[in-house]
Amino acid sequence: MSQHRLEKSLSRFEPFRSGAYRALQYFVLAAGLAAMTATTVPELPSALRTWLAVSLWCCLGFFAGELAIKCWLRSRSEPASDYLLSSSGAIDVLAVLPIPVALLIGVPGDSAWLLASLWLLKLTAFVPGLSLLGRVISLEARPLASVFVIFLIVLLLASVALYILERAGQPERFGSLPLSLWWAVTTLTTTGYGDSVPQTFMGRVIAGIVMICGLGVFGLWAGILATGFAAEHRRRDFIQNWDLVTRVPFLRNLDPPAIIELTHMLRRVDLAEETVVVRRGRPGDCMYFIVSGEVEVELDPRPIRLGPGSFFGEIALLEGGQRTATVVTTVPSTLLLLEVSDFREFTAHHPDVAKLVEAEATRRAVKNH
Amino acid sequence: MSQHRLEKSLSRFEPFRSGAYRALQYFVLAAGLAAMTATTVPELPSALRTWLAVSLWCCLGFFAGELAIKCWLRSRSEPASDYLLSSSGAIDVLAVLPIPVALLIGVPGDSAWLLASLWLLKLTAFVPGLSLLGRVISLEARPLASVFVIFLIVLLLASVALYILERAGQPERFGSLPLSLWWAVTTLTTTGYGDSVPQTFMGRVIAGIVMICGLGVFGLWAGILATGFAAEHRRRDFIQNWDLVTRVPFLRNLDPPAIIELTHMLRRVDLAEETVVVRRGRPGDCMYFIVSGEVEVELDPRPIRLGPGSFFGEIALLEGGQRTATVVTTVPSTLLLLEVSDFREFTAHHPDVAKLVEAEATRRAVKNH
Amino acid sequence: MSQHRLEKSLSRFEPFRSGAYRALQYFVLAAGLAAMTATTVPELPSALRTWLAVSLWCCLGFFAGELAIKCWLRSRSEPASDYLLSSSGAIDVLAVLPIPVALLIGVPGDSAWLLASLWLLKLTAFVPGLSLLGRVISLEARPLASVFVIFLIVLLLASVALYILERAGQPERFGSLPLSLWWAVTTLTTTGYGDSVPQTFMGRVIAGIVMICGLGVFGLWAGILATGFAAEHRRRDFIQNWDLVTRVPFLRNLDPPAIIELTHMLRRVDLAEETVVVRRGRPGDCMYFIVSGEVEVELDPRPIRLGPGSFFGEIALLEGGQRTATVVTTVPSTLLLLEVSDFREFTAHHPDVAKLVEAEATRRAVKNH
Amino acid sequence: MSQHRLEKSLSRFEPFRSGAYRALQYFVLAAGLAAMTATTVPELPSALRTWLAVSLWCCLGFFAGELAIKCWLRSRSEPASDYLLSSSGAIDVLAVLPIPVALLIGVPGDSAWLLASLWLLKLTAFVPGLSLLGRVISLEARPLASVFVIFLIVLLLASVALYILERAGQPERFGSLPLSLWWAVTTLTTTGYGDSVPQTFMGRVIAGIVMICGLGVFGLWAGILATGFAAEHRRRDFIQNWDLVTRVPFLRNLDPPAIIELTHMLRRVDLAEETVVVRRGRPGDCMYFIVSGEVEVELDPRPIRLGPGSFFGEIALLEGGQRTATVVTTVPSTLLLLEVSDFREFTAHHPDVAKLVEAEATRRAVKNH
Repeated sequence: MSQHRLEKSLSRFEPFRSGAYRALQYFVLAAGLAAMTATTVPELPSALRTWLAVSLWCCLGFFAGELAIKCWLRSRSEPASDYLLSSSGAIDVLAVLPIPVALLIGVPGDSAWLLASLWLLKLTAFVPGLSLLGRVISLEARPLASVFVIFLIVLLLASVALYILERAGQPERFGSLPLSLWWAVTTLTTTGYGDSVPQTFMGRVIAGIVMICGLGVFGLWAGILATGFAAEHRRRDFIQNWDLVTRVPFLRNLDPPAIIELTHMLRRVDLAEETVVVRRGRPGDCMYFIVSGEVEVELDPRPIRLGPGSFFGEIALLEGGQRTATVVTTVPSTLLLLEVSDFREFTAHHPDVAKLVEAEATRRAVKNH
Repeated sequence: MSQHRLEKSLSRFEPFRSGAYRALQYFVLAAGLAAMTATTVPELPSALRTWLAVSLWCCLGFFAGELAIKCWLRSRSEPASDYLLSSSGAIDVLAVLPIPVALLIGVPGDSAWLLASLWLLKLTAFVPGLSLLGRVISLEARPLASVFVIFLIVLLLASVALYILERAGQPERFGSLPLSLWWAVTTLTTTGYGDSVPQTFMGRVIAGIVMICGLGVFGLWAGILATGFAAEHRRRDFIQNWDLVTRVPFLRNLDPPAIIELTHMLRRVDLAEETVVVRRGRPGDCMYFIVSGEVEVELDPRPIRLGPGSFFGEIALLEGGQRTATVVTTVPSTLLLLEVSDFREFTAHHPDVAKLVEAEATRRAVKNH
Repeated sequence: MSQHRLEKSLSRFEPFRSGAYRALQYFVLAAGLAAMTATTVPELPSALRTWLAVSLWCCLGFFAGELAIKCWLRSRSEPASDYLLSSSGAIDVLAVLPIPVALLIGVPGDSAWLLASLWLLKLTAFVPGLSLLGRVISLEARPLASVFVIFLIVLLLASVALYILERAGQPERFGSLPLSLWWAVTTLTTTGYGDSVPQTFMGRVIAGIVMICGLGVFGLWAGILATGFAAEHRRRDFIQNWDLVTRVPFLRNLDPPAIIELTHMLRRVDLAEETVVVRRGRPGDCMYFIVSGEVEVELDPRPIRLGPGSFFGEIALLEGGQRTATVVTTVPSTLLLLEVSDFREFTAHHPDVAKLVEAEATRRAVKNH
Repeated sequence: MSQHRLEKSLSRFEPFRSGAYRALQYFVLAAGLAAMTATTVPELPSALRTWLAVSLWCCLGFFAGELAIKCWLRSRSEPASDYLLSSSGAIDVLAVLPIPVALLIGVPGDSAWLLASLWLLKLTAFVPGLSLLGRVISLEARPLASVFVIFLIVLLLASVALYILERAGQPERFGSLPLSLWWAVTTLTTTGYGDSVPQTFMGRVIAGIVMICGLGVFGLWAGILATGFAAEHRRRDFIQNWDLVTRVPFLRNLDPPAIIELTHMLRRVDLAEETVVVRRGRPGDCMYFIVSGEVEVELDPRPIRLGPGSFFGEIALLEGGQRTATVVTTVPSTLLLLEVSDFREFTAHHPDVAKLVEAEATRRAVKNH
């Protein structure tokens, strides 16, 4: 790699995105949180306590080092403040600064180290689906808020009713509205601690209605989120697939409605090198388009290699049989997978594409002999 | 604003719909409910109790004043009784009248103020999704009722079984059918207080079956509501968008199937003035149509302004790149947003519209130079 | 009504299907079940106990009378055994026979009357959605069984693990596998009575995993039922609407794809006589087709009446405004409702139908002047 | 059956797939697990204990015998190790080996027999939907992981907060972070044992928020699984039906888009011999295509038999009436069922197919007279 490309890749934190580094981060994170949890157990022998403190400082050091390197790399191309003010930068700073600051201003060690729970925020950077969830929740904000208002109304009315009905019999459980609200929230969420339980007949009837409302709130919540999730998921996949489809010449040159239909059907598959994609003799339930990388088809006279823009696995779909050859990736590759059900549906709507695929398959077979 | 327009806007309660007024209402509501809740705590010092009483009377005064002003404004155009009998009028009256009436007929102060929980009904006016929920529940009333009947049958059969099995061993817990029903409802809703727990072997087997039925009832409820919600949501969005689409000449003049398809895809966005809609250099993931208001496109020689009926943001979609200019609203504006995935799908089905959009984009680019 | 028609209607139990009779049945059912529940309370004064016994015998008498009349009516057209062996006949018999039989064979009164809980089965006859639920569950039987097997596996493995971990510390709670299974089922269904709670560290870790699995089982269950419900609901509505659509000549004569599309969009509405269907000046959000019955359109010179096969309410949709006339039913009527969103979608796909509707509207307006 | 066919069918374990054998397996499995569970009850009389031990050894013997026969059969066509290393082979081995091994290395009998819970894994082989569930979970792994990360973050933050707030008041309940985590997991899953309950005001407010988050996590989980399940279910049915459709000449010869549409609509039905498929005089709500097997149509002059590739039940759909004849299977048969709603939709889109079906129906009616 040239000096220039190395720098560019460093300033984008590419080494920080590799699988090995990510595994290390997960390990440090898990170790740190486990150490923090263990520290709070009073029965711990003091020897172990020392070791836990050491490991906590090591984890903090690791995150501090990560922050420093990222700042330094980024500062070569843009002001470091840009990075520190971005959401991922803020998470990195929150993982490092609060603990020493707390210790400096005199917070006792036990309490200060509880701030290590902020390290958990680092997980949000690794979770690609989190933004999807956030979007669904923001799109469905109105009906979700409506369900929440219903929840609040039921909560308050139930607790006022129980306060009136039960305060005479159980003053220590329902003697004030806050106590009664506590009962209502544990009941409406169907948690049911059982620390406050209505004893009067009417109180129990109302409690029963509150529990059934709890089921209803669950159902509405799930229904709303399911609706939003289905729509958003489809949209997200489409955008991701579109970028990949436009990199495959064979797909890019189809007429627009065919591209749209296919984009909805394809699924991205990322494979490491030397991975077996299809195995000879197995039933063929999908075909593949190569977006990037390379695969080797282990054909009989001599193996052939297919690069970006090629496709394979179509013979088993066209003839409805088993795989005729094993295919292995030679380098890390990104493929687009088309299931047999979608292949049949697509070729039924676009018989010309089916002919193109068949022609290509024949051409390849002839060339190989 | 002319005297006439002011009166008209007042009689429609427009000042009552502004964001600032709404925030004030939320604050008064929250303060009032918090004060009501706090009043019921017996341990409260009497000084604080006085302050709470004062704030409760202030909240009541606020709602009374709101009711009086609304009545007076409305009475100028129609009989005040029309307003008082409407659902929003009834809620306003319910927030004001019951408390003084209760105090007058001799209900003790503590209990009378509990009627302040009726203030919560004011929230229903602010929640636009509540009518949607109501419609889903009414449309799905039949299957929901079926699930409820199943719920009742399981409830009664389980409590009869447990009454027979457990009454000998735990007469104070399962000694009558009402006691046994109480156990059944806490178990079937999976609340599980733990105050009555079966002890016999057969009783526990039946309890296990009841819990599993509880999961099933949850699942059915959620499934029914999800189905109804998805259908109703789609219909609601269509009607809202249709009204907006017909205000944009470019969209209104498409052929009907294209309008229908687009109406399903668009999403309404309401923006305050001086809001950045798109920012130069960011990836372009949608385009916008202006329904009302105005935006300023910060192009290089001189910025241009686009009014209702215009669209922008299409260049990044057509060329697949980044935003070429920052766009800011100059007045509060309503836009229709078309996501890149929907744009691609739509232009694939209607290539002529894609050409119109492109022609307009070119025309604008030329005009600007 | 002629003697013949009366007999025919009686042998189909038509009087038993009227709203008033159904309300009476609900009342007797509710009163009987409430009396049965109250009888089991030991603290009851004996005077009240006598009254409860009287009302229970009255309810039983009512159901016995109903059974006798149904048998007699049905026996005039077919053997009574046919009715008794049908599912609704079996339910009627189960409501009447078991209690006297139990009393005769010497079961004490308290226990015999518990059989009155079988009366609840009568509810299943009134609930139209119950067969829909049954069909969804039978169609999705395979995945539901899979979730149940997962549930069983988690249940058994968790209870074996907890038995091993906790039996030393809490022999009275986890000292045998059945006790441990009881804990597992209350935990996996997230009921959580709290009567047996793991105390060891590993026991609690496993309990936490079991609870999370409980959430997962919920989610899977809801997901499966939601999928099946959506499909079945759509199918059911289609079949019901098709029967109605073929009774409206205007709809029946459309070309088949248009009929299919419309059948998916329409919704059945049953109205009593003298019901206001649309009110002048209200916003128009749907149009109606008359399947059976008659409506009166209160137009200005003189009202006109529309019978089966006519439609109304289309003017507000075509011109996008308010209702131009109030429409009232004159007899009990069945209408098909087409929402504005569906109307727009339908006329966009079938512009010729839109013209037919418009022509009819014009013809009617002209005729009226 | 010839010797060759017998061997081939044996090596595929066909006798092991028959309904009777499967029922036997279920019985042995249930008996074994019940015996294992009963063994752990300390109060058991020793006579019963002996019988339980005998039945456990019998079950183990049964599974060992099954394993031995399967190995022997398979070893005639391929190395036995292939079978032992497959997933179903591994399950068979896990059911047999661990218990004797545990007994040999000196594990006491009680504990060793707990390994019989591994027998439950045999159920996974019978549950066809399990792979479907697995696929849905793997396809939706990203959003599910996101929800899990949110779950973890809420869990840790809540337990840190409660540890700080409650450790002073309830050191035995919230005195360390692990204790506080235990509270958090029982609350966030809405299990709510009630063994640790927050007592401070702020602690209860946070507990309320955690419970509501618990509802949200439920909802998200259900929403994600419902979305994935709907997509996967459709795909699975399509692939299964496609294989069957291509075996019916009448269907195979339709044009591709019609085949695709029909494949989505059909549903597979497996029937035993001498089963009544449709009964004369019943309303006709579907038609059938015969994939394999044979049916007898009980027509008036003489019954006719229909073999693979034929269809029946179409007359009631075409004429909208009742079944004109009873149809019974003569051998075990596989049919494809087309509901009336789908039939109408399909023939509306493909009027030529409707004509073909009608022609065939006429031809058959003529031939029969």
